[in-house]
Amino acid sequence: MKLLQKIIKNIQPLDSEIMKKSRTRVDNLIKPPKSLGKLEAITVQLAGITKNIHPSVEHKAIIIMAADHGVYEEGVAPNPQSITIEQTLNFPKGLTGVCAIGEISNAKIVTVDIGINGELPLNSGVINKKIKYGTDNFAKGPAMTRKEAVDAIEVGIEIAQQQIKRGVNLIGVGEMGITNTTASTAILAVLGNIPPKEITGKGSGLDSKGIQHKIKVIEKAIDINKPDPDDGLDVLAKVGGLEIGGMAGVILGSAANRVPVVIDGYIATVSALIAKSIEPKVKDYLIPSHASMELGGKRASELLGVEPMLYMNMCLGEGSGAALAFPIIDAACNMNDKMITFKEASMNP
Amino acid sequence: MKLLQKIIKNIQPLDSEIMKKSRTRVDNLIKPPKSLGKLEAITVQLAGITKNIHPSVEHKAIIIMAADHGVYEEGVAPNPQSITIEQTLNFPKGLTGVCAIGEISNAKIVTVDIGINGELPLNSGVINKKIKYGTDNFAKGPAMTRKEAVDAIEVGIEIAQQQIKRGVNLIGVGEMGITNTTASTAILAVLGNIPPKEITGKGSGLDSKGIQHKIKVIEKAIDINKPDPDDGLDVLAKVGGLEIGGMAGVILGSAANRVPVVIDGYIATVSALIAKSIEPKVKDYLIPSHASMELGGKRASELLGVEPMLYMNMCLGEGSGAALAFPIIDAACNMNDKMITFKEASMNP
Repeated sequence: MKLLQKIIKNIQPLDSEIMKKSRTRVDNLIKPPKSLGKLEAITVQLAGITKNIHPSVEHKAIIIMAADHGVYEEGVAPNPQSITIEQTLNFPKGLTGVCAIGEISNAKIVTVDIGINGELPLNSGVINKKIKYGTDNFAKGPAMTRKEAVDAIEVGIEIAQQQIKRGVNLIGVGEMGITNTTASTAILAVLGNIPPKEITGKGSGLDSKGIQHKIKVIEKAIDINKPDPDDGLDVLAKVGGLEIGGMAGVILGSAANRVPVVIDGYIATVSALIAKSIEPKVKDYLIPSHASMELGGKRASELLGVEPMLYMNMCLGEGSGAALAFPIIDAACNMNDKMITFKEASMNP
Repeated sequence: MKLLQKIIKNIQPLDSEIMKKSRTRVDNLIKPPKSLGKLEAITVQLAGITKNIHPSVEHKAIIIMAADHGVYEEGVAPNPQSITIEQTLNFPKGLTGVCAIGEISNAKIVTVDIGINGELPLNSGVINKKIKYGTDNFAKGPAMTRKEAVDAIEVGIEIAQQQIKRGVNLIGVGEMGITNTTASTAILAVLGNIPPKEITGKGSGLDSKGIQHKIKVIEKAIDINKPDPDDGLDVLAKVGGLEIGGMAGVILGSAANRVPVVIDGYIATVSALIAKSIEPKVKDYLIPSHASMELGGKRASELLGVEPMLYMNMCLGEGSGAALAFPIIDAACNMNDKMITFKEASMNP
């Protein structure tokens, strides 16, 4: 809890002076004002985050938090739980979707076992930060204790700080965890005061009967646990997941170190809602990526107050959408570094 | 005309056999089926275009067609016409928006003077294919003759074929030409049978009074010239532009050589509508990029039958949106090349 409290105190507002200077420069580049839209906004935001009018995002990492969920036993996922461990082992091997997409911008893939229900082999390349062997079944009681929720967040903070110390200056958050759309939807329902039936989707492939059952499980979980919507930690502990806590920690830890964070789709956006509930200023450090196809994705983005850039009909998770946004952020920096102003070009627009 | 006729004959349907094989492979990669959405669709499309289940898009070029418009004298642009020549000279120097964005994926920038109203200095790096010194004012008569429209398209075909011969295997189309949203809107109004007032936007920065005037000029142009909506060449000649014809030629020339083409925003999408009117099969060779902020952008995409991937609030032109889509296409290819199947991973989803 000490680390989390320290980190919260370190999260400061963006530097508005530098942002004003950055906006002036961007407005004077040889193009109609605002014609590069969100690329311009990203440049100004990065300037405010990094306190640098020419920020660099050269060293990128996707941090993937992997964990299992006790609520799996309610039959809310179409896939075996073993997929979590099997797919987690594929990340360090570079074989999954996020690896293929991340390679385009030389992003490092950092994989963390924060609560997989099983033992990973030694030398798997996965960082062992296991808090427990999956959460408890939140249809019967809280997913974890409040202390475990804090531990999960602190794991995320530690991993983020470690990567930042090694030179990483752009972080994307991703996850792996069978059943985690169930936890995410429960969190979103509580934080947004939204009836679960409006936001419960198919996850990795439920049919409509399965979705109806999933809605009932989520309703029951909220009813039994009564999470406090004004307390992100309470919501995380009662109906969340270890990987969701870990991602919230990565977000908080990055913001405290003035490093921008790209959020992936549905589950990552929900983890950002937890982080924002804990410290609202983190929101300014976030860069959205893609609009998830998962039903609750749109409401989650709206509640967080971000507008996705990529509409790819994707819903893989893993940080795949965040990785796809990395080259866009490179393009924003390149616009800022390589374009010249009207004055420099001796042009009168 | 001979070149155009030959090229039209060479445009063949995509290879449906290879596409079926590609779809099977993509469906079996270690992810929930369809969870990588448009990345999967691009992979399958590229397989159909190139007749190769592992297509390469390593060598990219943005081809920028630059020209002026006689209708400029009606006062439909907020900027001086000289911006066309000034900005065109900045492309080979690598100083503009599309250059900065294209650099992210090592795209070559190929700039063509197809009808700028002025002389470019020698050794400017711009390819001289000038057909005339800007179109005629289409508020008073046709923008160009039918022969000039064919010439413009054939310039585009030649440039595309030249680049393809040099190894380029992914082409993006872009443009530069003060007043070219006026020409594009006139074309879209005719081809889509849409009242100009529904699609006439601010271009590079008209105020609302300026937009009202622009609408009247477009209405007058259509009324005077009576372009035939079933004849893309007639529409291009009467209310189009030389750079729009050139882009249509790049599209037709790429399709005839089974090379995919990424279309930029509003003006490029309209040029694709001209190409599609000339030969409907080109549509399958197109990959959309961003949703232009220009008012007519959405209707143009709908009429063409494509769904943009990037929502960046951009409206620069130059091919900047197409360049921003290049890394997405790289990601699609990398997904296809680097991910393994469930069988290869010994996983049972």
